[in-house]
This record gives sequence, C-alpha cells and structure tokens, in this order.
Amino acid sequence: MKFKKNFDVRNTRNLTMLVDFYELTMGNGYLESGVGDKITYYDMFFRKVPDGGGYCIMAGIQQLIEYLSNLSFSDEDIEYLKSKNQFSEKFLDYLKNFKFSCDVWAVEEGNPVFPNEPLVTVKGPAIQAQFIETMVLLTINHQTLIATKANRICKVAEGRSVMEFGSRRAQGYDGAIYGSRAAVIGGCDSTACTISEEMFGIPAVGTMAHSWIQLFDSEYESFKYWAEVYPDNCVLLIDTYNVLKSGLPNAIKVFDEVLKPKGIRPKGIRIDSGDITYLTKKCRQILDNAGYTDAKIIVSNSLDEFIIRDVLSQGAKIDGFGVGERLITAKSEPVFGGVFKLSAAESSDGLIIPKIKISENEEKITNPGFKKVYRIYDKDSNKALADLIAMHDEEIDENKPLEIFDPVFTWKRKKLKNYYAKPLLTKIFDKGNLVYESPSVMEIKKFSEKQTKRLWEEVLRLENPHNYYVDLSPKLWRIKQELLHKYSDIYE
Amino acid sequence: MKFKKNFDVRNTRNLTMLVDFYELTMGNGYLESGVGDKITYYDMFFRKVPDGGGYCIMAGIQQLIEYLSNLSFSDEDIEYLKSKNQFSEKFLDYLKNFKFSCDVWAVEEGNPVFPNEPLVTVKGPAIQAQFIETMVLLTINHQTLIATKANRICKVAEGRSVMEFGSRRAQGYDGAIYGSRAAVIGGCDSTACTISEEMFGIPAVGTMAHSWIQLFDSEYESFKYWAEVYPDNCVLLIDTYNVLKSGLPNAIKVFDEVLKPKGIRPKGIRIDSGDITYLTKKCRQILDNAGYTDAKIIVSNSLDEFIIRDVLSQGAKIDGFGVGERLITAKSEPVFGGVFKLSAAESSDGLIIPKIKISENEEKITNPGFKKVYRIYDKDSNKALADLIAMHDEEIDENKPLEIFDPVFTWKRKKLKNYYAKPLLTKIFDKGNLVYESPSVMEIKKFSEKQTKRLWEEVLRLENPHNYYVDLSPKLWRIKQELLHKYSDIYE
Repeated sequence: MKFKKNFDVRNTRNLTMLVDFYELTMGNGYLESGVGDKITYYDMFFRKVPDGGGYCIMAGIQQLIEYLSNLSFSDEDIEYLKSKNQFSEKFLDYLKNFKFSCDVWAVEEGNPVFPNEPLVTVKGPAIQAQFIETMVLLTINHQTLIATKANRICKVAEGRSVMEFGSRRAQGYDGAIYGSRAAVIGGCDSTACTISEEMFGIPAVGTMAHSWIQLFDSEYESFKYWAEVYPDNCVLLIDTYNVLKSGLPNAIKVFDEVLKPKGIRPKGIRIDSGDITYLTKKCRQILDNAGYTDAKIIVSNSLDEFIIRDVLSQGAKIDGFGVGERLITAKSEPVFGGVFKLSAAESSDGLIIPKIKISENEEKITNPGFKKVYRIYDKDSNKALADLIAMHDEEIDENKPLEIFDPVFTWKRKKLKNYYAKPLLTKIFDKGNLVYESPSVMEIKKFSEKQTKRLWEEVLRLENPHNYYVDLSPKLWRIKQELLHKYSDIYE
Repeated sequence: MKFKKNFDVRNTRNLTMLVDFYELTMGNGYLESGVGDKITYYDMFFRKVPDGGGYCIMAGIQQLIEYLSNLSFSDEDIEYLKSKNQFSEKFLDYLKNFKFSCDVWAVEEGNPVFPNEPLVTVKGPAIQAQFIETMVLLTINHQTLIATKANRICKVAEGRSVMEFGSRRAQGYDGAIYGSRAAVIGGCDSTACTISEEMFGIPAVGTMAHSWIQLFDSEYESFKYWAEVYPDNCVLLIDTYNVLKSGLPNAIKVFDEVLKPKGIRPKGIRIDSGDITYLTKKCRQILDNAGYTDAKIIVSNSLDEFIIRDVLSQGAKIDGFGVGERLITAKSEPVFGGVFKLSAAESSDGLIIPKIKISENEEKITNPGFKKVYRIYDKDSNKALADLIAMHDEEIDENKPLEIFDPVFTWKRKKLKNYYAKPLLTKIFDKGNLVYESPSVMEIKKFSEKQTKRLWEEVLRLENPHNYYVDLSPKLWRIKQELLHKYSDIYE
C-alpha cells in the first residue's frame, strides 16, 4: 500500500496493559502456586450469532497480531504494578523480562464462522495464555461484530454500493478506525473515515454536509460553487430545505448550467432525510426526464439491513447507501459475546488433560481438550456442508464416508460422501514467533466474498436461517461426556 | 497522579486525519470559493436522552482538548491527500501550515446536560470549524453515552459499589479505555481495565476467573492457593461448579482454615451466573451463620440498571456489582445522537448572521445564532430549575423575575423569582490557545455527583422522568421565528 501511514498499534501505542486486572492477579497467583509455566490451552469462541443470523464474519486477526507481537512492560508499568502491593518481586521480574512464547491458531479474517467452534486457540504457559484474554476478546469481538453486521447490510443491498459513514457515532476512536476496517471486510466498498484509507487502503469518500449549503446565501449558489470546484465529482446533497421543491431543481439547474457546457456528467445526488422510497422514485423520474439517467441516487440517514430491505422492496430507486451509526455500533445487537475458556492443561509429564466448564445452562458448557476444526466441503458444488470440531491429533480420511451428528440431539445423524475437509484454523504464532502474514484489507474483503458464497443461501438468510452444522468428532464427544459425568457425580 | 502513564492521544497518536472525508472536500471547497476564512459558529448538541431518561452526563472534554491541541498534518498526510487528486495546492499548503485558531466553549465534564442545548460551541474559520466536526462528535458522543449509562446504573445500585468490567466486550480499545473513564465520571467507583488506572488514576480491581479454579485439581485447592497468595484480598469466585453445594462450602472452609488462623477477615465472594436473588440471599445467610457477616457479596453477569433494580427489589443481598458489556457498549441504546450544526456565520463587515437548518421534522430544526446557556438555580434549595439558551450578548438581571416559556408550546410560561443564573459553558480554547485545565477523572466524578444532586428527583427518574426545562430567551425565540418564516415563504 502506497500511503500506509506510520500509525498503528504496533508503532505508536503499547496496549500491553489493556488487560483485566484479574489477569495479573491470577498470573501472580499461578507463579506463586508453582503453575506459572504449566502449559495451558484456551479457546476463544462465541455462542450466538447476533441479530438471529446464521453466520458471522471473522475479523480482527491483524490487530491481535500487532498486539501480541509487541507485548512488553515499561518501567512505569512495573512501577505502577509494584504500587498495588499485590505482586511478588518474582512476578514483576517475569513481566520485566516478558517474552511471548505461546502458540496461536486462528481462523483467517473474512471467513464465515459459527457458534461454539474455536476462532482462536492459544497454547502456552498459564501466565501468558491467561494474560492475553482481554485483548483476544476485545479485538475479535469488536471487529467480528462489525464485519458481521456489515455483511448483513451489504447482502440486502444486493450489489449496490454500501459506504461506511459512522465515525461520528462510533464508540471511541478505534471504534471508528477498526470499525471501518471490519465493515469493509464484511462487504462495504468504501468509508468516510479518512484515516482508514491511509492505514488500510480502504477508499475514503465524501462530498458535502448541510453546512456547505447553509454557509452560502442560497442553495443554488452553494451547488454552483461545488460544481465549479468539483466538476468531476459532483454529488449534491439536496435535502437541506426541500428535496423536490428546492434541492433537486437547483441541482439540475447547476448540472445544466455548469457541467453540461463542459461536457461533464454529474455524479449524482444524495438524500439524507425524509421518505426515501417516495423521494428516490420521484427524483429518479425527474433526473431521467432531465436527461441525467446516469446520475446516481445515494441515500443515508440511520439505515440498516431492515430499512434497506424495506425500501428496496417498495421499489425505491437507489444506487448507493451511506450507512452510519447502526453499522458502526451494530446498534441492533451491539455486543459480540465471545468468550475465552480454558480447554486443557498439561500434566507434569506432558499429558494434555482436557478441562471443562460446566454450567446449569447447557449451551454454556465448553468443549474440552486441545482441538482443531475441519470445514467439510461438497466435492461437486464446493459448498460448505459442516464444520467438524475434532481433537488436535485426529485426521480425516476423505476416502471414507464421514458420519456427523448433532452434539445434543445425537440421533440426528448424517453420512457425508464425496466431500473434502480443510482445516479452518491457521497457525499465527509458533512459540511466540509470528509465522503468518495478513493479507491487505481489500484482499480479505475479496476472500470473504468468496468464502461466503460457499455457504448455502439458506444459511445466509437474514432471519430464521438454516442452522449450519457444527458437530463434534466421536472422540471429542466421548471425552466431553466423560467429563460431564464426572462432574455430575460430584455436584448433582 | 503518581503513575500517569506516558500514553494518551496527545503523546502517542496523531488522530488529525480521523475525519469524515467530506470535511476535507468542503474545506477545499470553502477555500476555493473564497469563504475559507469566513468566521463560522457551530453548536454540538443532542436531541434525545438515551433509554428514555431525563438527563445525560457530559463527558469527553479532556480527550477533545488533547485532539485539538495537537492538530497537525504530517508529510504523509499531505502526500496521501495529494494522491486523491481533489485538493488544490493552496488547500494542501493551508493544511501543511495548519494552526488551530478557533474559540471553543464547552460544558464541563460531569455536568448534567439536556437535549437541544449546546454542549460545545465552536467559533472559527469555516475550514477549521468544519474540519473538527467528526472528532467533536465522536469524542463527546461516546463518552457522554457511557457516562450517562453508568449514572443510571449507579443510581439504582443505591450506594453499592459498581465496578466497570466491560473491556473484553467493548467496541475497540478506546471503547474500553475511554469507556471506563466515562463510566467512572458517571458514577462507577473502579474498573477492571488496568491501563485506566495508569492513565486516569481510576482504581483497577479484579481477582480471579473460572480458569483459575479449573486449572487446579479441585475447587477447594484452587481457593486455598488463592487465600495463601492473597490473604488480605480474598474474594473467591464460587460459581464454577455449583454455588451452594460446592463453591460456598469450599470458600468457607478456606476462610476457616487459611485466613482465620492468621486473624485475617475474608473480603468476600463473587457470583457470576445463576439466579442472583436466590443465590445471594442463601449465601448471605450461610456466610452470616459461619461468622462472616462482613464478607461482601459481589455479583456480575450481564447486569444493567433494569436487572439491578429488579433483583434489589426482590431483596437480593448484594454489596457490589461488576457491570460489563451492557455498560461499556450502552447496550440498550448504543448510539448517542449528538450533531454538529452551523448556527451562524459572519458577514464581511463582521455581523453575525444566524443560520438555521429547517426540517419537516420539527425537533430537527436547529437553534440559530451565536448563543450561550444559563443554568438557573433556586436560591433557597440550590436546585436547578431550568436551562435558558440565550444570544451570546444577553445578560440576566438576577434582581428581576425571569419569565421562561416552552419554545413550542409558548403559552406554557413560568415566572422565576429568587433565583440565580450561572453560565453553563466554559471557554476551553481562545483563538486556538488552550485556556482550560481539566480536573482529574476522580475530581470530575465528585463534581458530577454534586451537580446531579442539584436536579430534582423527578428529573433523575429512570423512566418517564419530569421534563427538565430547556427554554429559549425571548430574543433567541424571535430570531428563530423570523428565520422559520423566511424559509416557509420560500419553500411552502
């Protein structure tokens, strides 16, 4: 990228201390209790797709990489921690000489992901794997939330341009910056957030606000000035006073008087208020009659997938959407509930002991053990059929039929033939060393489009989608049952 | 603050380019159209209190100050902008030599604020005042949203401790960091976000996660280790397996065996799942019977003001709340809809010409002109009676009765006597120079408590609150009417 700004987490902020305080108290406790270096396994996963959808779009790995690549504690950090009077000298020394040494696997950004499967798996010393909990969750939760929301919105826009317009209503600066990144991964084609173009190469777009029109003596005059300054990029905002009685007539007048003599076609108009369906139909007609059939109609104003679907179903004439606050905050469901759970720990003789978190709430029970995930594809259609969570050492023999079964309703079984299986998780860090290079955001966006097309339409549905299979291998299922029985004996 | 970390927007990130792209296209357009240096006036205000509440808590000024104090364009920024082929050399030179020269007024952080009154007013050259729109909105919208949500939650907690626990589910890193700052301004007394203590002096707290318990061979063993490492700070998380059958008995056993012999009192227990009301009542009883009447009961798990009110009304025995995702994202209404609107512009001979944005939607019509806001207090009770938006040159003679009237239902009038009036907005920048020093976050928190107590209980109500008066001075009202009539003539 040509204009990659010298501005990202790696270069300018040390977010090492952006941790929940208990990660430090536990770290110190592990060390003091003699288990600081015990090898532990954690999975990051989520339990529910937001908005009742059928899938999520993975995002945030690049920022997680930047964080993990640069974990280090400054003298001030150590001094601050010392002042809390809760940490041993030994622990503070550990932090002072901190060297990240975990293995990390993750689903690549842009991939569709589903409930209960690991999106990130961490293997490493108890202190370290615990320490990174907050940033794994914060990073992946945020970007996956926004990428997923964007994907829903872009889906209903049916190929029309969707521009991310939400910076001013985002939840904090990173909410705007990484939110726009995630929105593009999910499908948006551009952003109003200028710094995102510098940082990620996402096209930044924008024309005028109402203040431009207000500042001049008349709407007509303001349009005229604009067309003179930007003849080649003339999109006029026509709803400052009255779309049909003032805005559009003035726009057409200016197209005629300023652009036509120069032989330049206007880019279009934007409407930011009022009845979108009615106004865009009228505007389309009037523009067409005036000879501006190629002038685009862009709309904005608190849009989301539901409003877009609604106005399009009513025949609104729209070429592009500017989507703001409801995308950048995922307003309809602004929390992505990813969790980070201990799944195994090694005994002193190197055995991997699976760990489970039980709960009265069945769906909160975790999948124990060191695992991997296969995505199973149909050989003919190349469509994804199911994800299979297996133990880390299980291999799939693609020459044999693969029986999958629902982990709760185990009589629901399906025998897959003519399939192939691809590991879903990629190794990102090997003993603390980065072994993965992230594609650019625009490449991730393309990858995501491709991968999403490999899901059946039924899974992609906005509401009441078909439940994509995420099943357990028989081996994993047995281990889980054994652990559950063990605890049911103790705590029934 | 002793451990103020060398980490904030001022020192480590240049967010100058975190702007909507149209602020740049308009800036270039203003310059090219000869109005770049025209003195303009903008108000930032909001129209609706989130969650149907009666007031908001102002927050974010310190971060806005940091941004505005450090506006500057790097060579890369200029090079990037040049590559867009939309900006004149003259404009790029302007940016290269950018010197912020606006006046900025703002409501001090922690103050209660109400719809339609300016929270921030900017006076300055058209290019500059327009340029800062995104960051004014992004900063104030985010922190005011979270401070307001926190205030609602703390209000129903009725003096119990409320801890901000949301980092892992925040929308981006700043969502966590500045979100915790705003949460404390709104009333929280501590945070789990460690870096916030370093940056803002907010006490960081935390003990253990379920993974601590899972990592050891038994819950009892894990508690024992904890009590040995942290005898003076022993809060045990008791819901990993079963609160009443396992967690609490094991906790009490460890209190008895490890702490009692040392003469140390346990700090308490935490419950993160299950039926809070039932479990806390039972736990209180059992703890009391075991002689631990002073052991505190802390609860967490998707709490907000509604759940807290509900469980307390059922007699739950709770000493403190850890509030996470629903606070840090303001889940019930995650968008604070502040806007930044042109209110006036100076003519070439220095007259301030009021500007209005009209709309078919009455409440979207702006208040024109260069204004100020008075908060009117009752002399006896010191309670706030109303806010009065006036023209910038209006003074209130406190010796005369003050008639206020509803700006829409103008027959609703009230004559105030025995009052005093205080300007609500404070000057922050004078011709680009910072003339204000922010108090510390903990000072702002105290200030906010005091100021909120000056509102009537009826305004503070969670739902269906009394509408606090935000009225216009007769002069401002007349100017607004005249402008409305002018436009109704043109566009009816």
